[in-house]
Amino acid sequence: MEPDFSKNDGLLPAIAQNAGDGKVLMLGYMNELAWRKTIETKKAHYWSRSRQKLWLKGEESGHVQLVQEILLDCDRDTILLKVVQLGGAACHAGYQSCFYRRYENGRLDIVEKQVFDPREVYRK
Amino acid sequence: MEPDFSKNDGLLPAIAQNAGDGKVLMLGYMNELAWRKTIETKKAHYWSRSRQKLWLKGEESGHVQLVQEILLDCDRDTILLKVVQLGGAACHAGYQSCFYRRYENGRLDIVEKQVFDPREVYRK
Repeated sequence: MEPDFSKNDGLLPAIAQNAGDGKVLMLGYMNELAWRKTIETKKAHYWSRSRQKLWLKGEESGHVQLVQEILLDCDRDTILLKVVQLGGAACHAGYQSCFYRRYENGRLDIVEKQVFDPREVYRK
Repeated sequence: MEPDFSKNDGLLPAIAQNAGDGKVLMLGYMNELAWRKTIETKKAHYWSRSRQKLWLKGEESGHVQLVQEILLDCDRDTILLKVVQLGGAACHAGYQSCFYRRYENGRLDIVEKQVFDPREVYRK
């Protein structure tokens, strides 16, 4: 019983949830290669749609996600990873979660504290 | 600042998370119509890809999701809803969460208790 990569053109949404506090950290996409790499290494791999390549989350920042548990949904077309987030932050903008903004009446309010300064982590 | 419906052919993944215990309940897809209906009614609406129609979650089962909070991710192409799940179960299979099975070595083990019997809720 594997995820059903015959759906969604072989690209399934994968939610990373913090194993500790249950915070939803991010959503990425996995193709079968990213899925296999995740299983093999127990580090979350995604398929980068913008760069069209396999992406080890944290390969540049060091903010790797150690996979503790994998759950599949009823249709086997969405993946839920419970992870330990190294560096304490999943988002490239320096927040614990990519969902660091609350929506209200067309406004977005930042509801988290920044954990790191992106300019220091992504030096290029 | 709205979700960016210019991406993903206008269909963005939306994660429903239980406001109480932080459990990830399900992932659905929203187009702009489902998003507007969700905002207006504070009840989660999705776009059913299989039926190609607007879907008020719980319209048949009564298991409506009351939206407490909406968060957007850094790219504004994924939506996170914190909800109160009426009936205590989001999944049509009768579990609290659609992610009721843990994956390990090609096996899926059920890790939740069934909350309701689908045959009683979906009489058709």
